[in-house]
Amino acid sequence: MKLYTYFRSSAAYRVRIALNLKGLSYEAIPVHLLRNGGEQLQDDYRNINPSASVPALQDERGTVTQSMAILEYLEETHPDVPLLPPDPLGRARVRELSQIVACDIHPLNNLRVLRYLKHTVGVSEETKDEWYRHWVREGLAALEAHLDRDRGTGHFCHGETPSLADCFLVPQVFNAERFGIDVSAYPNIARINANCVVLPAFQHAHPSQQPDAE
Amino acid sequence: MKLYTYFRSSAAYRVRIALNLKGLSYEAIPVHLLRNGGEQLQDDYRNINPSASVPALQDERGTVTQSMAILEYLEETHPDVPLLPPDPLGRARVRELSQIVACDIHPLNNLRVLRYLKHTVGVSEETKDEWYRHWVREGLAALEAHLDRDRGTGHFCHGETPSLADCFLVPQVFNAERFGIDVSAYPNIARINANCVVLPAFQHAHPSQQPDAE
Repeated sequence: MKLYTYFRSSAAYRVRIALNLKGLSYEAIPVHLLRNGGEQLQDDYRNINPSASVPALQDERGTVTQSMAILEYLEETHPDVPLLPPDPLGRARVRELSQIVACDIHPLNNLRVLRYLKHTVGVSEETKDEWYRHWVREGLAALEAHLDRDRGTGHFCHGETPSLADCFLVPQVFNAERFGIDVSAYPNIARINANCVVLPAFQHAHPSQQPDAE
Repeated sequence: MKLYTYFRSSAAYRVRIALNLKGLSYEAIPVHLLRNGGEQLQDDYRNINPSASVPALQDERGTVTQSMAILEYLEETHPDVPLLPPDPLGRARVRELSQIVACDIHPLNNLRVLRYLKHTVGVSEETKDEWYRHWVREGLAALEAHLDRDRGTGHFCHGETPSLADCFLVPQVFNAERFGIDVSAYPNIARINANCVVLPAFQHAHPSQQPDAE
């Protein structure tokens, strides 16, 4: 398997964690989002992913893009070390927690959005950073409220083993901390993140451990 | 089943289409996003969905939020009239197309984001509308590129029967047209949308047909 990845991409980081949790080896193909005007925007890469974003996963069947679609695909094609629980409501809960990050936080804070805010809307660096922190705080507060209320919460987001929701939580916490947000304000998130980051699968997926890390 | 919904919510519209395609009856419980300071923000509703957003689906098992999680849940609990194909790569493709809408377009344009842009960032009505159109155009161009390239594209987004991807496409086109975007610039999207909107399942899910329509 080949994974088109960028060390600091939150969406690629999610997939790297899942591949590691499932014990699947892969070839990392770095796509530099900043160099050469953005390698993801070049025709060679658009032929792989017309959305011009990472990650993209290639195997003998074909190419899959969008991190949640890739994670579901890995779950269906490599069901060992399951990252979704067996019961429908538990599966729904793991997807729900994942999508709070994937739909309510991350899309507002990715590179192309911050660039548009700065260069097209013309906001100050300070307003851009406050935008970033606002959506992280809103989203983490919602995620914390779910984790705090739900009986399904355990050592990890759902129960006692890592799930797809943890693959989303850890990269989001990494991003939050990069922007100076203290996640201890969200005790369940901070606790679960701490439980995850000691595991080799999460450690080896960390941006600093990637071949293209700077 | 109960569906907490708002007639004009794009995410609720997706779920209404899927429920109709599967022939499932449900009780619509309107949550007015603008009235009373936003009914979704009130404690009664936050007890149902701590994220304070629609839709939320309740059945005898419990509550599920986040539209993609709800759709996957319906697919697992009501597999008749499948909205995902049987093969793993086809399933991945339907999810990928869905997530281009769910992650790359809609989160940038929902009510809370437009409000923050206007009231906190302080942009003009014109800049806000241009923001909206920019992300719709970017996202529809990516979706069109996928549909144009992929052999899986048929009468609908994937093959000859409606799938989850069509449940995402139609509400997004509805939103785009509300903001004056001509979708004929995206021929596959325009064609598939036209094929969907003649079907009763899509027609009955339309915002104008909801009990809370204004």
